[in-house]
Amino acid sequence: MTTYATLNPRQRLLMGPGPSTVPDRILRAIGSPTLGHLDPQYIQYMDETCQMMRDVFVTKNQLTFPVSGTGMAGMEAILVNLIEPGDEVIVCINGVFGGRMKDNMQRCGATVHVVEVPWGQTFTDEAIAEAVSKHPKATMLGIVHAETSTGALQPIQGISKIVHDAGMLLAVDAVTSLGGHELKVDDWNIDAIYSGTQKCLSCPPGLSPVSFSPAAIEKMEARKTPSQSWYLDVSMLKNYYTGGGASSGARAYHHTAPINMVYALREALQIVLEEGLEKRIARHRTVHLDLRKGLEELGLTYIPENSLSTLNCVATPEGINEAAIRTRLLNEYDIEIGGGLGVFAGKAWRIGLMGYGATHRNVVTLLSALKECMSST
Amino acid sequence: MTTYATLNPRQRLLMGPGPSTVPDRILRAIGSPTLGHLDPQYIQYMDETCQMMRDVFVTKNQLTFPVSGTGMAGMEAILVNLIEPGDEVIVCINGVFGGRMKDNMQRCGATVHVVEVPWGQTFTDEAIAEAVSKHPKATMLGIVHAETSTGALQPIQGISKIVHDAGMLLAVDAVTSLGGHELKVDDWNIDAIYSGTQKCLSCPPGLSPVSFSPAAIEKMEARKTPSQSWYLDVSMLKNYYTGGGASSGARAYHHTAPINMVYALREALQIVLEEGLEKRIARHRTVHLDLRKGLEELGLTYIPENSLSTLNCVATPEGINEAAIRTRLLNEYDIEIGGGLGVFAGKAWRIGLMGYGATHRNVVTLLSALKECMSST
Repeated sequence: MTTYATLNPRQRLLMGPGPSTVPDRILRAIGSPTLGHLDPQYIQYMDETCQMMRDVFVTKNQLTFPVSGTGMAGMEAILVNLIEPGDEVIVCINGVFGGRMKDNMQRCGATVHVVEVPWGQTFTDEAIAEAVSKHPKATMLGIVHAETSTGALQPIQGISKIVHDAGMLLAVDAVTSLGGHELKVDDWNIDAIYSGTQKCLSCPPGLSPVSFSPAAIEKMEARKTPSQSWYLDVSMLKNYYTGGGASSGARAYHHTAPINMVYALREALQIVLEEGLEKRIARHRTVHLDLRKGLEELGLTYIPENSLSTLNCVATPEGINEAAIRTRLLNEYDIEIGGGLGVFAGKAWRIGLMGYGATHRNVVTLLSALKECMSST
Repeated sequence: MTTYATLNPRQRLLMGPGPSTVPDRILRAIGSPTLGHLDPQYIQYMDETCQMMRDVFVTKNQLTFPVSGTGMAGMEAILVNLIEPGDEVIVCINGVFGGRMKDNMQRCGATVHVVEVPWGQTFTDEAIAEAVSKHPKATMLGIVHAETSTGALQPIQGISKIVHDAGMLLAVDAVTSLGGHELKVDDWNIDAIYSGTQKCLSCPPGLSPVSFSPAAIEKMEARKTPSQSWYLDVSMLKNYYTGGGASSGARAYHHTAPINMVYALREALQIVLEEGLEKRIARHRTVHLDLRKGLEELGLTYIPENSLSTLNCVATPEGINEAAIRTRLLNEYDIEIGGGLGVFAGKAWRIGLMGYGATHRNVVTLLSALKECMSST
């Protein structure tokens, strides 16, 4: 028999595009004894998790729950339920994740109209208004709030009004903004939104918080065909997640929920609410400005015109081996940062300041290490 | 702000249809520090996990990996990749999970031919031969090895020969058998198989081990249309899971893997291999016979003609409130057992003896508690 070493992962400082560093309190939660998925105690934990998720999404949407998969499963959960074959939809692409939305929408059998701006830029209300008037039959517009591949922050409120005035639904990717940026699902009138646990919630990856507005539910309930996914079919999932009070009897079994991941998410959301959303968002902003100052002093320039606090995407200097520097940061300093994706591959660093990891100490640690590496690689 | 209690799940003895009780060693593994999904150390852990999975599936299939979702995501991963719209397929239904396979196959756009026997029974080679000759154009036959809803164990070898002689692929549900029953993917010539972590591997729920044969890969590579699922599209996933050696450079990012769940699965597989597959399967058989003797002494009768070791499905006596007894077991003894599903709802108990939980101590504990409850409920 082959023998394998004892599991002993290094304690990395995770300052890439995610996962972010998970605090010990959440690691202890995830290692708590596993309960059955219909145990009344678990149902209560799950209900509390959904309620805290509503508080963090700032929504009263009843249909708010964690999809049993990572962020991309959340994207798919929204699209396979809200799109029927033959629907027309609009997607806004300014980076990797808008492109994925398009791919996913096509797999749902939609006719997809693309609005595009160069990577790193964001969409103006005018550009959206033009697209919407050009495709009046579209049922939905999909857009990324926080583009993880470029670090661009997309304003949502103006777009939401335009989309709704045209009678369309608005679907939003908030993977890298939930818990780190202002995000108000009800105030901004977002119909379907998904995020991930492993970014600004500082929880291990494995779940995707999602929320659906009453208008989105109406669209799903009017479907003529079942969703192409059984695993992600919200018409069945909602009986498990919102099927009644805390009694297990009212909950229809659909699939075995990832119990221990839900423990971790519950703990993570509790930490967010203990800090307070506004204070947390302000903290992300403050450390982002600290980092920005330091990176610019090192001669690095930000790629997006409207940068996220949570993810800092900078162009790597000409003639530098960006991958070698990332390897040194990992091997010599136990610090992970991300490289560029897509058109920015080999040309950018992506530095995350997310949740528990968004601290001034981490900023100075990274800047010092990066300075050392840049001066001698 | 609403305050929530500290997470403090009870230490239940999980003897239902899963999740099963998770040993402390695995709970400590899942709470280890989170690594990045492209960290060379994580890639090594993932590669080791896939190799151990091959050892437990008894296969050399290169394409063997954990789907980032629970068991039902594994079922869907197999069907959305192996079925194209318009394909004819055959499904064998003798319980809930065969029925789910059918539903899922239909969502893939297949014409589905059903072979059925009453719940609790299994399929004879003759029945399969008849179905196969009746539907010669079918590309695949799907069957459940261990039907979690009835406790029936389905022999696979004879069926496999018939299916392959007809030029079809064989897809198998092994959610409740992997790690507890004899199961030899290569010897039995299974083309696509999925399982869950939360049964006989004694790991928390959240991942689905899957394996694809070279013939299955050939079928996938000949697709004319992309899979309807982006999240589960094996043509992309395989670049991440089998993209080259242990260097992260060769691995194409697809989605963020559920890192901590993979830690848990790695530890769980290590435990299985330390015990040895044969010894482990024999242990499940021994404690099953212990339990069977005790349950029959209490006057209970097994429902399936060919019972699993890992899941014991017995008819509840007439006039007894089966749910009240389960509630007492949970509240007074911290023991979870399962009720009946589908046609057996309210009429059966499902008692799991899975992995770490398959011990003589658990058998005597449950029998004593059940006897007390049955004599006074």
